[in-house]
Amino acid sequence: MTTVGILGGGQLARMLALSGAPLGLRFLVMDAATDACAGQFAPLLAGDYRDEAALAEFASRVDVATFDFENVPAESAEWLAERIPVFPSPRALAVAQDRLVEKNLFRRLGIPVGDFAAVAARSELEAEVARIGGACILKTRRLGYDGKGQFRIRTPADVQGAWDALGAQAKTVGLIVEAFIPFERELSVVAVRGRDGEFRTWPLTENWHVDGVLSASLAPAAIDAALAEAAYAHARTLAEALDYVGVFALELFHRDGQWLANEMAPRVHNSGHWTIEGAETSQFQNHLRAVLGLPLGDTRVLGHACMLNWIGEMPAAAPILREPGGHWHDYGKEPRAGRKVGHATLRADNAVALAEALRRAGSALGREAQVAPVIERLSG
Amino acid sequence: MTTVGILGGGQLARMLALSGAPLGLRFLVMDAATDACAGQFAPLLAGDYRDEAALAEFASRVDVATFDFENVPAESAEWLAERIPVFPSPRALAVAQDRLVEKNLFRRLGIPVGDFAAVAARSELEAEVARIGGACILKTRRLGYDGKGQFRIRTPADVQGAWDALGAQAKTVGLIVEAFIPFERELSVVAVRGRDGEFRTWPLTENWHVDGVLSASLAPAAIDAALAEAAYAHARTLAEALDYVGVFALELFHRDGQWLANEMAPRVHNSGHWTIEGAETSQFQNHLRAVLGLPLGDTRVLGHACMLNWIGEMPAAAPILREPGGHWHDYGKEPRAGRKVGHATLRADNAVALAEALRRAGSALGREAQVAPVIERLSG
Ligand SMILES: Nc1ncnc2c1ncn2[C@@H]1O[C@H](COP(=O)(O)OP(=O)(O)OP(=O)(O)O)[C@@H](O)[C@H]1O
Ligand SMILES: Nc1ncnc2c1ncn2[C@@H]1O[C@H](COP(=O)(O)OP(=O)(O)OP(=O)(O)O)[C@@H](O)[C@H]1O
Repeated sequence: MTTVGILGGGQLARMLALSGAPLGLRFLVMDAATDACAGQFAPLLAGDYRDEAALAEFASRVDVATFDFENVPAESAEWLAERIPVFPSPRALAVAQDRLVEKNLFRRLGIPVGDFAAVAARSELEAEVARIGGACILKTRRLGYDGKGQFRIRTPADVQGAWDALGAQAKTVGLIVEAFIPFERELSVVAVRGRDGEFRTWPLTENWHVDGVLSASLAPAAIDAALAEAAYAHARTLAEALDYVGVFALELFHRDGQWLANEMAPRVHNSGHWTIEGAETSQFQNHLRAVLGLPLGDTRVLGHACMLNWIGEMPAAAPILREPGGHWHDYGKEPRAGRKVGHATLRADNAVALAEALRRAGSALGREAQVAPVIERLSG
Repeated sequence: MTTVGILGGGQLARMLALSGAPLGLRFLVMDAATDACAGQFAPLLAGDYRDEAALAEFASRVDVATFDFENVPAESAEWLAERIPVFPSPRALAVAQDRLVEKNLFRRLGIPVGDFAAVAARSELEAEVARIGGACILKTRRLGYDGKGQFRIRTPADVQGAWDALGAQAKTVGLIVEAFIPFERELSVVAVRGRDGEFRTWPLTENWHVDGVLSASLAPAAIDAALAEAAYAHARTLAEALDYVGVFALELFHRDGQWLANEMAPRVHNSGHWTIEGAETSQFQNHLRAVLGLPLGDTRVLGHACMLNWIGEMPAAAPILREPGGHWHDYGKEPRAGRKVGHATLRADNAVALAEALRRAGSALGREAQVAPVIERLSG
């Protein structure tokens, strides 16, 4: 009997546990919140990642550990890794936790990235914005998620506002300024690498964000085959450089027939949720297979799938449940503004049928705006 | 927040909970065994179905109740149904629990059945075997499962042995003697009926038993379309007569281009396990949708699927995990002779690919005999 420990007890841990049950696994989820939603379907250890006694109890009860949450303190991950197998490795986690380290690695590996620079003072920000010469984004180096900890700098006049908003964090989590990329499309490679180095990717996924938060994903993305291969190659290069084990996502901007890497997420990813029904093997099951050293499952897509994120509160389920390829995912969370509380996946055998399903569901839910860009892409 | 109570905490309850989590449901499983395998992923109330205090606690903690186990005492089901919604209804459960009542109902509804008769005494058994005139099977009317409580009567000389084995049960669970059907094939209709009467079936499944226990299932079964329609119509007739709500299976013998009904199972069924990966919506999720009055999901098959049962102990997982369409289901049970401990499903886009996958997996597992009849059917 193998028990998998998961640091973080949100929807990713919950879906990991649900998809790992058929492998005969047991789970233990650790989260500071006693009502973490994964706790509805797996034993929950309530505790802080920085509390050594709690971590020790966690370590004593599991055979291997992984993450639902990428911002587990690197020291906690290392402390654990000295005692039990931890995948992905604390080093891979540390790289992905820091936008600057990550972007420097991308550059070193030949993975194209937009212009960027670390900034420690207001004057540096001013100078870098002038050097980059165009719109920029100031971001915290660490601990950002869902577009939080970011400030858009459209003109040099915005520098003051950006520094007022985030400057205080220069000394804590650090700051990075990036060229704003007027991208045409955003896509992600969701990929998995096994303990033996076997590497697989799901088909490229196209993503739409609203206010910095993922709103919809479509797979397989319609994209030039050579370009897709280049994206998979970048993901593979990155995974091998980090000796990465498990599922990760590489987020990419697409512009003028080129890729620019945005960031990597060292865990199962929201843009891979469609794989539960839309692929032969889901990202959740393959993450566990990788972490346990089991053979990886087939990542091919079954038809066409679109994932719609539910933020803040769940809409009515019936319009999705009534769709032939409609699948519902309620994370069992309390509604709260900006919170990811669930998603739906619509699956169909072809793009036309998927567009029709999205049109029906979008109008029944009053969410025409959420489905519109996906329908447009499917019809294009 | 809706909590679904499940009477019985085996693999069916476990798979119900896993597939109901995405609907935002909570579960409470009741089982006499404190280590019932569903308890690994859902709260477990250890208690006997006949213990009124335990039932009362169960009723107080759930919004609706259903079954993993069809032999819950009818009185317990009725006691519950006076307090909370229970689906399927205690009446439907009672019919399915008694082979005699069930077969009488089949006959009354025009669903063809083989010859049968209730027998209360040895002399009656002798007379009925003579009247039926050929091989027979003596069965307990109630509480049989997986071929238990059955005795094959090949010639009148076997009557003595049959009575010695089962006669004592004539006064407790009752006995029925059936004509032995030299069937060509065994199939099942797995169907679902909603609270509003909506009725759907998955494609017909062909089943192979070994020693009275299901060994393999194949879907969709290759069968004449008109005959398939007749099977679906029988299932629908039965469901409507019982005002059935939820998933059930109608087990059929096929012989000389005709159907003869064997029995119905008033619950999700082992011959429907392939629907987890092989159909757009699984029997588990549709059972919950039905019980909760939600729209039913699409029951169409995705390609071709074969389910292999693991009895007694789990074989090595790798040969299945390595198959592109290979899916593993370990129920987290202790190995024990004759116990259903898990299953695998192989899925493929076409029959040829499925046969090849079965051949590879069967040989890697040393289970050539288990896969042989399925391969033969796929090649036929
Ligand atoms: N340099 C940039 N140029 C243009 N758009 C950007 C840039 N950086 C971020 N964005 C937009 O904001 C979104 C969120 O940014 P980013 O991925 O950096 O944030 P995050 O907080 O890590 O988000 P997530 O949790 O979704 O990964 C991006 O998906 C993209 O739409
Ligand atoms: N009258 C019959 N003629 C021929 N074979 C029979 C007959 N009754 C049962 N069998 C064989 O035995 C198997 C199990 O019988 P039956 O379905 O009555 O038992 P059960 O204990 O209720 O099984 P399960 O739990 O699988 O439903 C059948 O699937 C069939 O292969």
